Amino acid sequence: MPSGPEQLLLELFAIFVSAKVVGELFERLRLPSVVGEILAGVVFGPYALGWIRPSDTIYSIAEVGAIFVLFSAGLETSPGELIRVGGKAIQVAVLGIVVPFLLGFSYMKLRGDASSEAIFVGAAMVATSVGITARVLSNLGVLFTQTAKIIMGAAVFDDILGMLLLAVVAGLSAGGRLYWLHLGVLFAEASGLALFMMLVAPRIVKRIQPRVGRLSTENAPLIVALAICLFLSWLAAKIGMAAIIGAFFAGLVFADYAPGWNLRPTVGGITEFLAPFFFFAIGSRLNARLFRGDLLIAAAIVSLLAILSKVIGCGLPLLSQGWRKILQVGIGMMPRGEVALIVALVGLQSGIILQSSYAIVVFMTAATTLLAPPLLRYVFRGEVAKS
Amino acid sequence: MPSGPEQLLLELFAIFVSAKVVGELFERLRLPSVVGEILAGVVFGPYALGWIRPSDTIYSIAEVGAIFVLFSAGLETSPGELIRVGGKAIQVAVLGIVVPFLLGFSYMKLRGDASSEAIFVGAAMVATSVGITARVLSNLGVLFTQTAKIIMGAAVFDDILGMLLLAVVAGLSAGGRLYWLHLGVLFAEASGLALFMMLVAPRIVKRIQPRVGRLSTENAPLIVALAICLFLSWLAAKIGMAAIIGAFFAGLVFADYAPGWNLRPTVGGITEFLAPFFFFAIGSRLNARLFRGDLLIAAAIVSLLAILSKVIGCGLPLLSQGWRKILQVGIGMMPRGEVALIVALVGLQSGIILQSSYAIVVFMTAATTLLAPPLLRYVFRGEVAKS
Repeated sequence: MPSGPEQLLLELFAIFVSAKVVGELFERLRLPSVVGEILAGVVFGPYALGWIRPSDTIYSIAEVGAIFVLFSAGLETSPGELIRVGGKAIQVAVLGIVVPFLLGFSYMKLRGDASSEAIFVGAAMVATSVGITARVLSNLGVLFTQTAKIIMGAAVFDDILGMLLLAVVAGLSAGGRLYWLHLGVLFAEASGLALFMMLVAPRIVKRIQPRVGRLSTENAPLIVALAICLFLSWLAAKIGMAAIIGAFFAGLVFADYAPGWNLRPTVGGITEFLAPFFFFAIGSRLNARLFRGDLLIAAAIVSLLAILSKVIGCGLPLLSQGWRKILQVGIGMMPRGEVALIVALVGLQSGIILQSSYAIVVFMTAATTLLAPPLLRYVFRGEVAKS
Repeated sequence: MPSGPEQLLLELFAIFVSAKVVGELFERLRLPSVVGEILAGVVFGPYALGWIRPSDTIYSIAEVGAIFVLFSAGLETSPGELIRVGGKAIQVAVLGIVVPFLLGFSYMKLRGDASSEAIFVGAAMVATSVGITARVLSNLGVLFTQTAKIIMGAAVFDDILGMLLLAVVAGLSAGGRLYWLHLGVLFAEASGLALFMMLVAPRIVKRIQPRVGRLSTENAPLIVALAICLFLSWLAAKIGMAAIIGAFFAGLVFADYAPGWNLRPTVGGITEFLAPFFFFAIGSRLNARLFRGDLLIAAAIVSLLAILSKVIGCGLPLLSQGWRKILQVGIGMMPRGEVALIVALVGLQSGIILQSSYAIVVFMTAATTLLAPPLLRYVFRGEVAKS
């Protein structure tokens, strides 16, 4: 009877349905539904038609949605298998950061921009945002492949390195001094968490597993898994990593128990409900009108470099494994997201980069986000048929 | 990497875990976990320890949680069975509104309060808030019983009548004029929606059911059910009913297809995640320190009347069916919630009732909310063993 929830419910309904309807249209056109859900946000969102202007609450729900997308992906990834591809994943992550930075920096210098501006644009091209890839791979049913494991593993290390880079550029913008001790602590915390989650945590879960069954709470395994997912998401955010990487860790920890605990349908239900808000929110932040003339050309070139550089950088460690795998991993690592936008925003707010460079980064984020799903589906088409 | 979600995630984690831990303790003490979850909100919330102060986003998530509690309950209630108890349910709803109002009004008059004040307190004692009952009955596994059907059906009609009463008291507070046409429209809309949902909507779903299977979207049945749940929750709120009653309707519509569409585990997962926020939020709004001395005695008497009057009013139509059923239905209809608080708030803001009467209503809401789950468990103990 209260009138309060009316507005929220209307927003939830409008976003959920518009994302899913455009997603369905895309599926029928043999395009990934994720792109449809993002485009629904672009088209109906504040910058285009303006029919749906998501409130802060919706953006918060979208963040929780992103967490469940990665939690679900983690539940399908056994930690043992991830460790087996660990060496390759680290190489992919490192070169997948070095190459984009160098290419982005060089292009901006060639264009005649200042070094500090080139550093920021290069840094913005570095960090992979793995939410979209995780969802597409899950929809394709190929999360079980070795390639998908390399992508997810590399995304973890990419996030650690990306976090350090963000600390560096934030330090640069705050006056040019770098606190090496601070960077060292950040790195140690993040690496420690990653190692702990992959090596130690699954054993702890193995040990407490019988006790969970003895709890009086209904659906105790699901409740425990959700609590740990929320905790690790918070912890990851707290030490400066992406919250979604924490959620992925939580999924990993329970992956081996997911079938016995029946976690996949129940967590899957939560993901189905919340994920559309995440993808719609991504789209609703894109302003397609920013780009005209020269800026559009520069933005297109930077986007192309952002794509090529991930394929080259992530591909180098995989040269012996053939083109197919190089393209799969490179394109899987291609989407950039909130880290790129934050780097650019830090640069803009501290006056180091111009509005035009900021717009270029926004365009690059949009282009890699929207192109990754169809390209991924294309390079994984063989695997899909097999599964 | 952004620092934004950190605070939200910490809140989500703290609320989820504290609600579930206290719930687990209560289960072990053979008390309903729902009371534990509510008490976690009372104890850790802003009015007592103050460790957790839920943000507006949490209260929004709590509202969505309430919707899923009722959606889940609806999924377990076949519309055909609800129609079969419809006549009894209407009688239970009507007398369950008349008796509490008369008892509340009389007591306040006897205490020496003004008639206008007595009307408001009486009105606040009327409307059942069925979320807690639905969760307890679901946890007990007795939603399939005829008694549970009578309670859920009566809750629908109670909500329609409660909505009209709210319109009446709002009219009184705005200057004493009643718009009969407006009331008639409200009544027609709400009754029309209820009849449509119980009689027509299930047939529509039966007809579109084969098409849902042909959609390209993954998990299409779940997506369609969620979309309709959000729509009906909004629609119910829009025409002045409780959003949760709309969610219950949505559950009803899909109840007969829930097993084939595998809706119960997936929707159940969402409910398990979101419901604790609803119950914690209920608790976090209770301020136990308000009550001292005379006020406490009056509040206790009003609370007692609120309980007895529902048992008497809801029990009268069931006299032939024995004490057990009378108590089950009466106690199931006993919890009061946001409608009571809104009626009291309208009265307070328009200066018709005093702060003391407002506090009495708050106490009555808290008492009926906290006492209903253990009493329900007690009067349903036979059924639990049978199931």
